Amino acid sequence: MSNANHRFVLAARPAGLAGPEHFAAQTRPVRAPEAGELLLETLYLSVDPAMRVWISENPGYVPRIELGDTMRGSGISRVLISRDSRFDTGDLVQTRAGWQSHPTVRADDVEAFDRAVGTPEDWMGLLGMTGLTAYFGLRDVGGVRPGETVLVSGAAGAVGQVVGQIANIEQCRVIGLAGGPEKCASLTRDHGFHAAIDYKAEPDLAAAIARACPGGVDVFYDNVGGPTLDAAIANLRIGGRVVICGRISQTAASELYGVKNLGLLIGRRARIQGFVVTDFAARFAEGRTWLAGQHAAGRLHQRLHVLDGLDQAPVGLGMLFRGENTGKLVVKVNG
Amino acid sequence: MSNANHRFVLAARPAGLAGPEHFAAQTRPVRAPEAGELLLETLYLSVDPAMRVWISENPGYVPRIELGDTMRGSGISRVLISRDSRFDTGDLVQTRAGWQSHPTVRADDVEAFDRAVGTPEDWMGLLGMTGLTAYFGLRDVGGVRPGETVLVSGAAGAVGQVVGQIANIEQCRVIGLAGGPEKCASLTRDHGFHAAIDYKAEPDLAAAIARACPGGVDVFYDNVGGPTLDAAIANLRIGGRVVICGRISQTAASELYGVKNLGLLIGRRARIQGFVVTDFAARFAEGRTWLAGQHAAGRLHQRLHVLDGLDQAPVGLGMLFRGENTGKLVVKVNG
Repeated sequence: MSNANHRFVLAARPAGLAGPEHFAAQTRPVRAPEAGELLLETLYLSVDPAMRVWISENPGYVPRIELGDTMRGSGISRVLISRDSRFDTGDLVQTRAGWQSHPTVRADDVEAFDRAVGTPEDWMGLLGMTGLTAYFGLRDVGGVRPGETVLVSGAAGAVGQVVGQIANIEQCRVIGLAGGPEKCASLTRDHGFHAAIDYKAEPDLAAAIARACPGGVDVFYDNVGGPTLDAAIANLRIGGRVVICGRISQTAASELYGVKNLGLLIGRRARIQGFVVTDFAARFAEGRTWLAGQHAAGRLHQRLHVLDGLDQAPVGLGMLFRGENTGKLVVKVNG
Repeated sequence: MSNANHRFVLAARPAGLAGPEHFAAQTRPVRAPEAGELLLETLYLSVDPAMRVWISENPGYVPRIELGDTMRGSGISRVLISRDSRFDTGDLVQTRAGWQSHPTVRADDVEAFDRAVGTPEDWMGLLGMTGLTAYFGLRDVGGVRPGETVLVSGAAGAVGQVVGQIANIEQCRVIGLAGGPEKCASLTRDHGFHAAIDYKAEPDLAAAIARACPGGVDVFYDNVGGPTLDAAIANLRIGGRVVICGRISQTAASELYGVKNLGLLIGRRARIQGFVVTDFAARFAEGRTWLAGQHAAGRLHQRLHVLDGLDQAPVGLGMLFRGENTGKLVVKVNG
């Protein structure tokens, strides 16, 4: 067992993309747990687009991370020392302890998870926030119905992959937008998409969507924002719904893109709806039961993109915004 | 009785604002009605922002008006000669016969209206499309609830005036956006608004809305679009709803404004919803009963802005887009 806790703290607020230059590595002695606390060994950390928002000056809907604070984030850890009767050494738990290798945390702040339902890798992806975001976003926010046409941006990303598969299970026709031929090939081969559009190869994205969705789009699940949103709105059917899950093209943009097609919402009787998955927390068990059932039946999986070592966490945050990940990005920290 | 039918046909498609130069006056002998037809004398014609859309190259959700065709539009007429057993000379009817003084129409294409419920002027405004648009837009599309804060753009316009009064009846706090001190004064004096913002006098509209709505906006009823929409989105509360009823700032714009604040919809869990009032046609009777009841109780009225003479119809269409009307714009044609 290590007697040092390695961690990353926020060292500077990025103006554009975030990367290693905005974080500082620190090493501290591990702190022995007191009553009601646990000493943990971090196994996996999640790296998510929302993190770029949390470190900005004014995130809006969550408290910002202050300079000098440990970077916030979720993950899975093993209990090394327990001073709480609910946990034993060797238990695996979900944590929100952030980017550190051996945190000491309150037992109230971790959550056991059911290894019979899924592996730690499943709990980092499909049964974690990305799977739940896909599930509630497409079904509850998007109100998707069998036979509809679903368009997904950021389709090769963590949430997008799962949205495609759920739409397929729901008997929809599902088209993915992704950057590059490899990602596009994986959408139709591995993730249940019926067609894929390489947005980097299309000079007129709206026209490309129109060719792939000749009857129009019923639900657009948007992880990207910006000009992609304009192109999708132009193809909405009457009664169409846009689910705004993320806007990775805009998160670190120096100037926000202005969406010009909102006037089309009138004649299309269409809506755009934003959401935050934690609002569905009371129904996470329902979502996980459904996701795990589909996973067990072989219809649903989540590809993890694994980086090795805590040092890779700040690197991974930049990768997300350069589109260099395929699937849910995680950092493997220990054993 | 006149034996000539005066009418305006579309003579040219406007690039920007529409006006008299885009219409041609024609005079034709009246056509004697055949069996099942009526000869009408037009009393009032409605002049609406949507007309500018109908005469564009590609309106989107309704057929365009062809060059040389009589300008489309609704109004109220008196029956001069009836060849249908359901109507007698002197009856008042609602029509869709467009910009003509003495049309001959099929009796199936007109609708009698109940003069006990409202005067012809009431049926042109409050009990017509503008009142119904306000009613279904605010209540059904906006889902407004007592105690909420409602912001209305184009508040001195036909629909906006009624939205303000309905919001007041629904026990909301309602703030109007209008251009100029006179219009703003009329909002609070005559139309039930609790406050008004003169957008022409505000260098920072978002900040002005924030001052008038310190707790944020629950429902934004938008008749205007463009930068006003951005300023309103910036002030939405969590769970906020934007009703896109119109976008008069953009209808004849040479370049569409790009809305930059859509990313805020995520954290605000907010939605933008477009609608077309005719989708509620099956419930128009319900809407008119409610509107007429509130009118009879003295809580709801519609100010008409009356232009005199058929020749004023093309002039009025331009006035709408220059913000020169206060209230529902109609043209008085005969009697």
